[in-house]
Amino acid sequence: MSFNTYGHLFRVTTWGESHGPALGATVDGCPPGIPVTEADLQVWLDKRKPGQNKFTTQRREADEVEILSGVFEGITTGTPIQLMIRNTDQRSKDYGDIAEKFRPGHADITYWQKYGVRDYRGGGRSSARETAARVAAGGVARAALSKLVPGLSVTGYMVGMGEKDIDRAQFDFAEIERNPFWTPDAQAAAEWAGYLDGLRKSGSSVGALIEVAVRGCPPGLGAPVYAKLDTDLAAAMMSINAVKGVEIGEGMAAARLTGEANADEISMGASGPEYNSNHAGGILGGISTGQDIIVRFAVKPTSSILTPRKTITKSGDETEIITKGRHDPCVGIRAVPVAEAMAAAVVLDHFLLDRAQTGGMRGPIG
Amino acid sequence: MSFNTYGHLFRVTTWGESHGPALGATVDGCPPGIPVTEADLQVWLDKRKPGQNKFTTQRREADEVEILSGVFEGITTGTPIQLMIRNTDQRSKDYGDIAEKFRPGHADITYWQKYGVRDYRGGGRSSARETAARVAAGGVARAALSKLVPGLSVTGYMVGMGEKDIDRAQFDFAEIERNPFWTPDAQAAAEWAGYLDGLRKSGSSVGALIEVAVRGCPPGLGAPVYAKLDTDLAAAMMSINAVKGVEIGEGMAAARLTGEANADEISMGASGPEYNSNHAGGILGGISTGQDIIVRFAVKPTSSILTPRKTITKSGDETEIITKGRHDPCVGIRAVPVAEAMAAAVVLDHFLLDRAQTGGMRGPIG
Amino acid sequence: MSFNTYGHLFRVTTWGESHGPALGATVDGCPPGIPVTEADLQVWLDKRKPGQNKFTTQRREADEVEILSGVFEGITTGTPIQLMIRNTDQRSKDYGDIAEKFRPGHADITYWQKYGVRDYRGGGRSSARETAARVAAGGVARAALSKLVPGLSVTGYMVGMGEKDIDRAQFDFAEIERNPFWTPDAQAAAEWAGYLDGLRKSGSSVGALIEVAVRGCPPGLGAPVYAKLDTDLAAAMMSINAVKGVEIGEGMAAARLTGEANADEISMGASGPEYNSNHAGGILGGISTGQDIIVRFAVKPTSSILTPRKTITKSGDETEIITKGRHDPCVGIRAVPVAEAMAAAVVLDHFLLDRAQTGGMRGPIG
Amino acid sequence: MSFNTYGHLFRVTTWGESHGPALGATVDGCPPGIPVTEADLQVWLDKRKPGQNKFTTQRREADEVEILSGVFEGITTGTPIQLMIRNTDQRSKDYGDIAEKFRPGHADITYWQKYGVRDYRGGGRSSARETAARVAAGGVARAALSKLVPGLSVTGYMVGMGEKDIDRAQFDFAEIERNPFWTPDAQAAAEWAGYLDGLRKSGSSVGALIEVAVRGCPPGLGAPVYAKLDTDLAAAMMSINAVKGVEIGEGMAAARLTGEANADEISMGASGPEYNSNHAGGILGGISTGQDIIVRFAVKPTSSILTPRKTITKSGDETEIITKGRHDPCVGIRAVPVAEAMAAAVVLDHFLLDRAQTGGMRGPIG
Repeated sequence: MSFNTYGHLFRVTTWGESHGPALGATVDGCPPGIPVTEADLQVWLDKRKPGQNKFTTQRREADEVEILSGVFEGITTGTPIQLMIRNTDQRSKDYGDIAEKFRPGHADITYWQKYGVRDYRGGGRSSARETAARVAAGGVARAALSKLVPGLSVTGYMVGMGEKDIDRAQFDFAEIERNPFWTPDAQAAAEWAGYLDGLRKSGSSVGALIEVAVRGCPPGLGAPVYAKLDTDLAAAMMSINAVKGVEIGEGMAAARLTGEANADEISMGASGPEYNSNHAGGILGGISTGQDIIVRFAVKPTSSILTPRKTITKSGDETEIITKGRHDPCVGIRAVPVAEAMAAAVVLDHFLLDRAQTGGMRGPIG
Repeated sequence: MSFNTYGHLFRVTTWGESHGPALGATVDGCPPGIPVTEADLQVWLDKRKPGQNKFTTQRREADEVEILSGVFEGITTGTPIQLMIRNTDQRSKDYGDIAEKFRPGHADITYWQKYGVRDYRGGGRSSARETAARVAAGGVARAALSKLVPGLSVTGYMVGMGEKDIDRAQFDFAEIERNPFWTPDAQAAAEWAGYLDGLRKSGSSVGALIEVAVRGCPPGLGAPVYAKLDTDLAAAMMSINAVKGVEIGEGMAAARLTGEANADEISMGASGPEYNSNHAGGILGGISTGQDIIVRFAVKPTSSILTPRKTITKSGDETEIITKGRHDPCVGIRAVPVAEAMAAAVVLDHFLLDRAQTGGMRGPIG
Repeated sequence: MSFNTYGHLFRVTTWGESHGPALGATVDGCPPGIPVTEADLQVWLDKRKPGQNKFTTQRREADEVEILSGVFEGITTGTPIQLMIRNTDQRSKDYGDIAEKFRPGHADITYWQKYGVRDYRGGGRSSARETAARVAAGGVARAALSKLVPGLSVTGYMVGMGEKDIDRAQFDFAEIERNPFWTPDAQAAAEWAGYLDGLRKSGSSVGALIEVAVRGCPPGLGAPVYAKLDTDLAAAMMSINAVKGVEIGEGMAAARLTGEANADEISMGASGPEYNSNHAGGILGGISTGQDIIVRFAVKPTSSILTPRKTITKSGDETEIITKGRHDPCVGIRAVPVAEAMAAAVVLDHFLLDRAQTGGMRGPIG
Repeated sequence: MSFNTYGHLFRVTTWGESHGPALGATVDGCPPGIPVTEADLQVWLDKRKPGQNKFTTQRREADEVEILSGVFEGITTGTPIQLMIRNTDQRSKDYGDIAEKFRPGHADITYWQKYGVRDYRGGGRSSARETAARVAAGGVARAALSKLVPGLSVTGYMVGMGEKDIDRAQFDFAEIERNPFWTPDAQAAAEWAGYLDGLRKSGSSVGALIEVAVRGCPPGLGAPVYAKLDTDLAAAMMSINAVKGVEIGEGMAAARLTGEANADEISMGASGPEYNSNHAGGILGGISTGQDIIVRFAVKPTSSILTPRKTITKSGDETEIITKGRHDPCVGIRAVPVAEAMAAAVVLDHFLLDRAQTGGMRGPIG
């Protein structure tokens, strides 16, 4: 990851600002021969699209993606794929106030200090709108994975919102698509609706806990010791706006365990090694084990709230600010498809890295 | 981060196995004109060195670092610095048993599956011994920082061990150097000694929670949106052996907060902006604010324990394993200097990246 | 340089095919605070634009560049700059014949063999049309250089066409802009017009020799030993379509000299070291000396000619091919602005790399 | 290529100075399962070793390579391979004079200006001694290639020295190993011996023209458009000390040809496409065709000569200098094994890159 590019071999460079004419992603290193259409990518963009219900920002964006290069007659050619999304509903008048004031919790002040110039309209480059480009690129990664690693799936879902957690006993993958929170616990979804609606009406916001499960990943992906699969997943998630923590498997709770409790014992199954538990989150020594890969991360509450907060102006004067723009009461909701996209890109990237170094050969067991 | 290299411009490539003749780090991109001697680096290696007390592995390694290149008459020349540490106490007879069996929680099985060949002696490349090279390279980063960013300090310390946390009210930076746990809470240190001794005697192990504070970091370091300072710090920590989670500032707990509670309000101080709190951990939009940078991570319990665990052999037979080698009951202790080294390298790297792009110019406030 | 990206810190990723909807460049790492407009970039694109006279392809392209991101109110913000150029005159019917046949000297056969799929229309990604994106990105590099290194200039010109060379005694920088060959020798320009017109009418083509001079470059740019300034310039030129050789200073002729003849003796001038000659082409040990940097390269003759050439089809049948599309009789002419753009990007990139590592500090002489 | 590292996936970082304790190469990304021993590498180092005959420097170096990591029981493990070569015959007293004076044609002055500090002993990092590390790393690349691409060979040879060229009609691959110039023309070898001996006795030096042929390379290697195989080969050769020009196939002479003369017509052979000529040097559009890959480069005459040359001191005083150290009258001779090593590394790197992106699948012809 570097500046505006992520990936070693499947390399995505995103570009664009919240209120510029367009934003997008330049996808380099995609394998040739992968079927992919704008409609395929649109499916994922529609998941992230704002304005779909009262729990997400009321900004109306079609988020229609155009493929400008790298795909010929519906097939990737191995050349760079340019994905462009036009900005249509920019309403930049909402943001006149923040040209001079720095919003607490936003990147306004640090962009100003670093660059000495900033596109203040809607947060410019630091807007979560940038993540639309990641989702489009993630769609390409998914298309490649579905050809190269059939059976692999990447699924994100919300496991906590504010003080409220899901009940893991109620976990149902099929439920995820059915509620606006992408949560696998139907009862939690019902409860959260009221909770979040209250926060929204009061102009407040709340954080969230998201998990991504990669199922069907073969063993052997990951490049120790500094491009470990978990290292790259952690970086991928931490690069998403508002993320403050990342966990693999047991995560922070691993600090609390003893060696006996944490050991994932190994037995021999019909088609290879099996594990009696998955504290490791599917990764040992930076390399996938073949178990489900489990990544979890925390999204902080949306910083844009209606309660006045103390801040300063560019001139150094103290003042207060209320952020009146259209915002998400829980920006974590829309982080779900973004995290899926990042996970898909990381896994594809590591599939390619592994194929380069080992040719996909695996050390035999049994 | 890629394969065995980390850093964008201050680039460190570590090499070497636990039981080979030597290990080390190739440090490229260091600024010229930095005073650095072997003795300067040895200070940090001695912090990490095994066998210093009963809470760390009884392997005896001098961990003496040699500078083979890149330093002339005590001054860096801008050319690559080769840092070599000879392995002296290899006792590889301890590890004969694990040539055929895979230790649960270790990378034995995944290295075998990925590469089809592995140096099983002491974990080979996946051994925590690799971190000695990071500490040496971190010493170079510290030397450069002390010249380029005077006043900046990087301090790691333990804030939790197993179920036991420090009392933040007792936090004392001066205490950190005085106890074997690098903890800032003297009372916790006393209590943990007995707790860990009990675990050690029973052949068990426990996880830990480490924090690193970077104080005196100027605003403006960090390269959005994919080389964010927090992204790179998260990757740096997650790349350390046994780390399962990383947090910046409020971390995973940010998921629990409302926007009002999480806002770090800004006021105008004598020498620039000041913040009334530091939920952000010193980073906004991936760029440093000038506040303390706070990174926290969890280390899982040492996987090598004396209680038998179920596993399989290379032939696919089910068996049990006890790991009899010399190990740390809480490997988190020795992760403290490693994390400091990684943080120093990341901060220096971003200082250089920022100097490249902006020339160190800062947008004025007030 | 990697896949579709060049540059270490000023990183340009080009995308797009000859007959797709658009092509462009994603420019990452540009310093903030640089004034740049679409009109500034258009100047350089107009130099490269096809259809300007009878010596360049009759394809009519407006080559109008749009800035889609990274520039706010006419100033670069330090975020990625997306430069898009729409393809307007695609006439893909010209290319139906080459869907099945491989044109000798073109990349048709190798793209097919490597990728198993190719956009055959006008050469797809391997078309020299890709260089329009480089020229646009080079315009950004020039804008940055004019602010960061005032007095530096980058000038390309043709020094040979087929068997005909310029007379170095007639070299006049002012002449370069006055003739369609960008040559500094007015008499050569007059002579070449008739020569090339004859080749054009006969459906033939010819190679060319181009030189780029970077004047006013400060000493100290270049990062030994594998990102030497001459290494990166050689790579930059060799990456241009149809280039088969690159020289620095004395170039291939250096093989013929003795040590006495080749030595650039040093004396002390008013403002620093001076050199009595410039066999080195302004670079010693990969680092600029402060003299003019001289790069020269050879462009092979356009492979598309009207004389039938033997080839094979995808089915493996032997056949002949005539390339009837609109082509340049001497593609070297349009390589001049492309080479300037590449040189500007390399020099800016090295200015940034040097600023990162040394802070621009220079070892004093005298 | 960047700072001290070359390669995309097979990445080599060299380190060390001419008169430090050691130098070497850190080789990352090597495929696992490759048989390689110190003796295998020593073969290539012995080709480059100084002091073998009167035509190379009389410095006596054993150039014995030690493998410190990454190889277990004679097999690469996929982890970084550290190759170390001790410096034994340093005689630094020879170089006392050049601590204050800058030798014309050497990097003394530019290293000083860039870094403000330099290891002046024997040229420090800019010494051609650095190339020993490349040769060792190239040995690893050759070992990998011989397993992964059986039948591929990399052979370098001298085709010109000063004003004297070989007679291509006398070209005999078997002759290359039989003479001290690695030239394929026995008669040229005989003639050059007297010619060079005269130059040597007079304390002069001369340049050389080297060619490398890669035979048996499969089609499809090369990653357009900025990691073209020819681009990477050009960069690899240009990064070698004293190289001033690089050519692929027809090279600079391509500027002189017409399209008809330059076309490599294609026919259908028994096992795939065949070409009636090889002006392209085995590469089209940056991708290998399956023909021999031909790279040629010019090495300037050794700058260290016995005739006094004008120069300046660090204090800015004008003076003269004679270089009395032990030097090669034609440094091009020892560039032959270095160029082979670089070519082997580039080809292996592109084999891995191609395997990553395409999986080695090839578009069928016929």
